[in-house]
Amino acid sequence: MAKFELDERLARDTVLATVTGLCQLRVMKDGRWPWVMLVPQRNGISEPFELTPLDQTLLTFETNMVASALKKVTGAKKINVGALGNIVGQLHVHIVARFEGDPNWPGPIWGFGSAQPRSETEIKAFIETLTQAL
Amino acid sequence: MAKFELDERLARDTVLATVTGLCQLRVMKDGRWPWVMLVPQRNGISEPFELTPLDQTLLTFETNMVASALKKVTGAKKINVGALGNIVGQLHVHIVARFEGDPNWPGPIWGFGSAQPRSETEIKAFIETLTQAL
Repeated sequence: MAKFELDERLARDTVLATVTGLCQLRVMKDGRWPWVMLVPQRNGISEPFELTPLDQTLLTFETNMVASALKKVTGAKKINVGALGNIVGQLHVHIVARFEGDPNWPGPIWGFGSAQPRSETEIKAFIETLTQAL
Repeated sequence: MAKFELDERLARDTVLATVTGLCQLRVMKDGRWPWVMLVPQRNGISEPFELTPLDQTLLTFETNMVASALKKVTGAKKINVGALGNIVGQLHVHIVARFEGDPNWPGPIWGFGSAQPRSETEIKAFIETLTQAL
Protein backbone atom coordinates (compact mmCIF):
# COMPACT_ATOMS: atom_id res chain seq x y z
CA MET A 1 0.00 0.00 0.00
CA ALA A 2 1.31 3.46 -0.92
CA LYS A 3 2.56 5.63 1.91
CA PHE A 4 -0.14 7.98 3.18
CA GLU A 5 0.40 11.55 2.01
CA LEU A 6 -1.12 14.27 4.18
CA ASP A 7 -2.47 17.31 2.35
CA GLU A 8 -0.07 20.27 2.68
CA ARG A 9 -2.67 22.69 3.99
CA LEU A 10 -3.88 20.25 6.64
CA ALA A 11 -0.25 19.71 7.65
CA ARG A 12 0.33 23.46 7.94
CA ASP A 13 -2.82 24.21 9.96
CA THR A 14 -2.61 21.33 12.44
CA VAL A 15 -0.34 19.39 14.80
CA LEU A 16 -0.35 15.60 15.06
CA ALA A 17 -1.71 14.44 18.43
CA THR A 18 -1.84 10.68 17.94
CA VAL A 19 -2.99 7.93 15.60
CA THR A 20 -6.37 6.53 16.63
CA GLY A 21 -6.28 3.50 14.33
CA LEU A 22 -7.45 4.41 10.86
CA CYS A 23 -6.96 8.12 11.40
CA GLN A 24 -4.44 10.72 12.40
CA LEU A 25 -5.88 12.82 15.20
CA ARG A 26 -4.63 16.37 14.58
CA VAL A 27 -5.14 19.54 16.62
CA MET A 28 -5.86 22.83 14.87
CA LYS A 29 -3.35 25.59 15.60
CA ASP A 30 -6.29 28.03 15.57
CA GLY A 31 -7.17 28.43 19.24
CA ARG A 32 -10.57 30.10 19.03
CA TRP A 33 -12.30 26.82 19.79
CA PRO A 34 -11.07 23.43 21.02
CA TRP A 35 -10.86 22.03 17.52
CA VAL A 36 -9.41 18.79 16.24
CA MET A 37 -9.68 16.74 13.10
CA LEU A 38 -9.46 13.12 12.09
CA VAL A 39 -7.75 12.32 8.81
CA PRO A 40 -8.13 8.74 7.58
CA GLN A 41 -4.74 7.53 6.42
CA ARG A 42 -5.97 6.63 2.96
CA ASN A 43 -4.85 8.31 -0.23
CA GLY A 44 -7.28 9.60 -2.86
CA ILE A 45 -10.42 9.69 -0.70
CA SER A 46 -12.59 12.79 -0.45
CA GLU A 47 -15.99 11.46 0.63
CA PRO A 48 -16.66 9.13 3.59
CA PHE A 49 -18.68 6.82 1.32
CA GLU A 50 -15.58 6.22 -0.81
CA LEU A 51 -13.97 4.39 2.12
CA THR A 52 -14.41 0.62 2.43
CA PRO A 53 -17.25 -0.43 4.76
CA LEU A 54 -14.70 -1.41 7.43
CA ASP A 55 -12.95 1.94 7.17
CA GLN A 56 -16.33 3.72 7.37
CA THR A 57 -17.03 1.90 10.61
CA LEU A 58 -13.57 2.70 11.98
CA LEU A 59 -13.99 6.36 11.10
CA THR A 60 -17.33 6.44 12.92
CA PHE A 61 -15.91 4.71 15.96
CA GLU A 62 -12.90 7.02 16.11
CA THR A 63 -15.01 10.14 15.49
CA ASN A 64 -17.41 9.30 18.29
CA MET A 65 -14.58 8.32 20.66
CA VAL A 66 -12.80 11.64 20.08
CA ALA A 67 -16.04 13.65 20.24
CA SER A 68 -16.94 12.06 23.56
CA ALA A 69 -13.46 12.70 25.01
CA LEU A 70 -13.48 16.28 23.73
CA LYS A 71 -16.83 16.95 25.38
CA LYS A 72 -15.60 15.42 28.63
CA VAL A 73 -12.35 17.38 28.88
CA THR A 74 -13.79 20.72 27.76
CA GLY A 75 -17.25 20.62 29.34
CA ALA A 76 -18.62 21.88 26.02
CA LYS A 77 -22.31 22.53 25.52
CA LYS A 78 -22.24 20.85 22.11
CA ILE A 79 -19.83 19.04 19.86
CA ASN A 80 -19.94 20.00 16.18
CA VAL A 81 -18.86 17.36 13.69
CA GLY A 82 -18.41 18.16 10.03
CA ALA A 83 -16.89 16.77 6.87
CA LEU A 84 -16.97 19.58 4.32
CA GLY A 85 -13.89 19.45 2.10
CA ASN A 86 -14.89 22.29 -0.22
CA ILE A 87 -11.40 23.76 0.05
CA VAL A 88 -9.18 20.80 0.96
CA GLY A 89 -10.31 17.72 -0.92
CA GLN A 90 -8.56 15.13 1.24
CA LEU A 91 -11.14 13.60 3.58
CA HIS A 92 -10.92 15.12 7.05
CA VAL A 93 -13.52 15.25 9.80
CA HIS A 94 -13.70 18.32 12.03
CA ILE A 95 -14.64 17.80 15.68
CA VAL A 96 -15.16 21.03 17.59
CA ALA A 97 -16.19 21.88 21.14
CA ARG A 98 -18.73 24.70 21.24
CA PHE A 99 -19.84 26.93 24.09
CA GLU A 100 -22.62 29.50 24.35
CA GLY A 101 -21.08 32.87 23.48
CA ASP A 102 -18.00 31.47 21.74
CA PRO A 103 -16.91 33.07 18.42
CA ASN A 104 -19.87 32.90 15.99
CA TRP A 105 -22.09 30.89 18.36
CA PRO A 106 -24.58 29.39 17.44
CA GLY A 107 -23.34 29.63 13.86
CA PRO A 108 -20.70 27.37 12.35
CA ILE A 109 -16.96 27.75 12.91
CA TRP A 110 -16.14 27.28 9.24
CA GLY A 111 -15.58 30.37 7.14
CA PHE A 112 -15.71 32.67 10.15
CA GLY A 113 -13.05 35.32 10.87
CA SER A 114 -9.34 34.59 10.98
CA ALA A 115 -7.30 32.00 12.81
CA GLN A 116 -5.79 32.96 16.16
CA PRO A 117 -2.89 30.57 16.65
CA ARG A 118 -2.25 29.32 20.13
CA SER A 119 1.19 28.67 21.57
CA GLU A 120 3.05 25.39 21.24
CA THR A 121 2.87 25.06 25.01
CA GLU A 122 -0.91 25.36 24.99
CA ILE A 123 -1.22 22.89 22.12
CA LYS A 124 0.99 20.36 23.90
CA ALA A 125 -1.04 20.67 27.10
CA PHE A 126 -4.29 20.26 25.16
CA ILE A 127 -2.97 17.18 23.36
CA GLU A 128 -1.88 15.68 26.70
CA THR A 129 -5.29 16.25 28.26
CA LEU A 130 -7.24 15.01 25.26
CA THR A 131 -5.23 11.88 24.57
CA GLN A 132 -5.41 10.83 28.23
CA ALA A 133 -9.20 10.97 27.93
CA LEU A 134 -9.36 8.75 24.84
CA MET B 1 -40.21 2.20 23.67
CA ALA B 2 -41.65 5.71 23.72
CA LYS B 3 -42.99 7.09 20.46
CA PHE B 4 -40.38 9.17 18.63
CA GLU B 5 -41.05 12.89 18.92
CA LEU B 6 -39.62 15.05 16.14
CA ASP B 7 -38.39 18.50 17.16
CA GLU B 8 -40.90 21.19 16.13
CA ARG B 9 -38.38 23.30 14.26
CA LEU B 10 -37.08 20.34 12.28
CA ALA B 11 -40.68 19.44 11.46
CA ARG B 12 -41.39 22.98 10.26
CA ASP B 13 -38.25 23.31 8.10
CA THR B 14 -38.35 19.92 6.40
CA VAL B 15 -40.55 17.38 4.60
CA LEU B 16 -40.40 13.64 5.26
CA ALA B 17 -38.98 11.75 2.28
CA THR B 18 -38.72 8.22 3.68
CA VAL B 19 -37.47 6.17 6.61
CA THR B 20 -34.05 4.70 5.94
CA GLY B 21 -34.03 2.31 8.90
CA LEU B 22 -32.91 4.10 12.03
CA CYS B 23 -33.54 7.54 10.61
CA GLN B 24 -36.13 9.72 9.03
CA LEU B 25 -34.76 11.13 5.79
CA ARG B 26 -36.13 14.66 5.53
CA VAL B 27 -35.74 17.26 2.78
CA MET B 28 -35.14 20.91 3.67
CA LYS B 29 -37.74 23.31 2.30
CA ASP B 30 -34.89 25.78 1.71
CA GLY B 31 -34.03 25.31 -1.94
CA ARG B 32 -30.68 27.11 -2.16
CA TRP B 33 -28.83 23.81 -2.10
CA PRO B 34 -29.94 20.16 -2.48
CA TRP B 35 -30.11 19.66 1.28
CA VAL B 36 -31.45 16.78 3.31
CA MET B 37 -31.11 15.58 6.85
CA LEU B 38 -31.21 12.29 8.71
CA VAL B 39 -32.92 12.27 12.09
CA PRO B 40 -32.40 9.11 14.16
CA GLN B 41 -35.76 8.09 15.59
CA ARG B 42 -34.51 8.13 19.16
CA ASN B 43 -35.70 10.50 21.86
CA GLY B 44 -33.34 12.49 24.06
CA ILE B 45 -30.19 12.14 21.94
CA SER B 46 -28.14 15.15 20.92
CA GLU B 47 -24.67 13.73 20.20
CA PRO B 48 -23.92 10.76 17.91
CA PHE B 49 -21.83 9.16 20.66
CA GLU B 50 -24.92 8.98 22.88
CA LEU B 51 -26.45 6.44 20.48
CA THR B 52 -25.89 2.73 21.11
CA PRO B 53 -23.00 1.24 19.10
CA LEU B 54 -25.48 -0.45 16.76
CA ASP B 55 -27.35 2.80 16.19
CA GLN B 56 -24.03 4.59 15.56
CA THR B 57 -23.26 2.06 12.86
CA LEU B 58 -26.73 2.37 11.35
CA LEU B 59 -26.45 6.16 11.31
CA THR B 60 -23.10 5.91 9.51
CA PHE B 61 -24.45 3.44 6.99
CA GLU B 62 -27.54 5.53 6.30
CA THR B 63 -25.55 8.78 6.13
CA ASN B 64 -23.11 7.37 3.60
CA MET B 65 -25.89 5.74 1.57
CA VAL B 66 -27.79 9.03 1.32
CA ALA B 67 -24.62 11.05 0.65
CA SER B 68 -23.66 8.74 -2.17
CA ALA B 69 -27.14 8.88 -3.72
CA LEU B 70 -27.27 12.67 -3.37
CA LYS B 71 -23.93 13.04 -5.15
CA LYS B 72 -25.09 10.71 -7.90
CA VAL B 73 -28.42 12.42 -8.61
CA THR B 74 -27.10 15.99 -8.36
CA GLY B 75 -23.63 15.63 -9.88
CA ALA B 76 -22.32 17.72 -6.97
CA LYS B 77 -18.66 18.60 -6.67
CA LYS B 78 -18.67 17.81 -2.95
CA ILE B 79 -21.03 16.52 -0.32
CA ASN B 80 -20.96 18.35 3.01
CA VAL B 81 -21.97 16.35 6.07
CA GLY B 82 -22.44 18.01 9.42
CA ALA B 83 -23.93 17.38 12.85
CA LEU B 84 -23.98 20.73 14.63
CA GLY B 85 -27.06 21.03 16.83
CA ASN B 86 -26.19 24.39 18.37
CA ILE B 87 -29.72 25.64 17.76
CA VAL B 88 -31.83 22.45 17.62
CA GLY B 89 -30.58 19.97 20.20
CA GLN B 90 -32.24 16.87 18.73
CA LEU B 91 -29.60 14.91 16.83
CA HIS B 92 -29.85 15.52 13.10
CA VAL B 93 -27.24 15.08 10.39
CA HIS B 94 -27.16 17.50 7.49
CA ILE B 95 -26.19 16.15 4.07
CA VAL B 96 -25.77 18.83 1.43
CA ALA B 97 -24.76 18.82 -2.23
CA ARG B 98 -22.32 21.61 -3.03
CA PHE B 99 -21.29 23.13 -6.34
CA GLU B 100 -18.61 25.65 -7.23
CA GLY B 101 -20.26 29.06 -7.22
CA ASP B 102 -23.30 28.03 -5.16
CA PRO B 103 -24.46 30.35 -2.34
CA ASN B 104 -21.51 30.89 0.05
CA TRP B 105 -19.23 28.43 -1.78
CA PRO B 106 -16.69 27.29 -0.54
CA GLY B 107 -17.93 28.36 2.89
CA PRO B 108 -20.49 26.45 4.91
CA ILE B 109 -24.24 26.55 4.31
CA TRP B 110 -25.06 26.96 7.98
CA GLY B 111 -25.72 30.46 9.27
CA PHE B 112 -25.67 31.96 5.78
CA GLY B 113 -28.42 34.26 4.48
CA SER B 114 -32.10 33.39 4.53
CA ALA B 115 -34.05 30.36 3.41
CA GLN B 116 -35.58 30.42 -0.07
CA PRO B 117 -38.39 27.88 0.06
CA ARG B 118 -38.97 25.77 -3.00
CA SER B 119 -42.37 24.67 -4.23
CA GLU B 120 -44.11 21.49 -3.10
CA THR B 121 -43.90 20.25 -6.68
CA GLU B 122 -40.13 20.70 -6.74
CA ILE B 123 -39.76 19.03 -3.36
CA LYS B 124 -41.86 16.05 -4.47
CA ALA B 125 -39.82 15.64 -7.64
CA PHE B 126 -36.57 15.84 -5.68
CA ILE B 127 -37.80 13.23 -3.19
CA GLU B 128 -38.82 10.95 -6.03
CA THR B 129 -35.41 11.23 -7.71
CA LEU B 130 -33.45 10.83 -4.51
CA THR B 131 -35.34 7.89 -3.06
CA GLN B 132 -35.11 6.00 -6.36
CA ALA B 133 -31.32 6.33 -6.13
CA LEU B 134 -31.11 4.93 -2.58
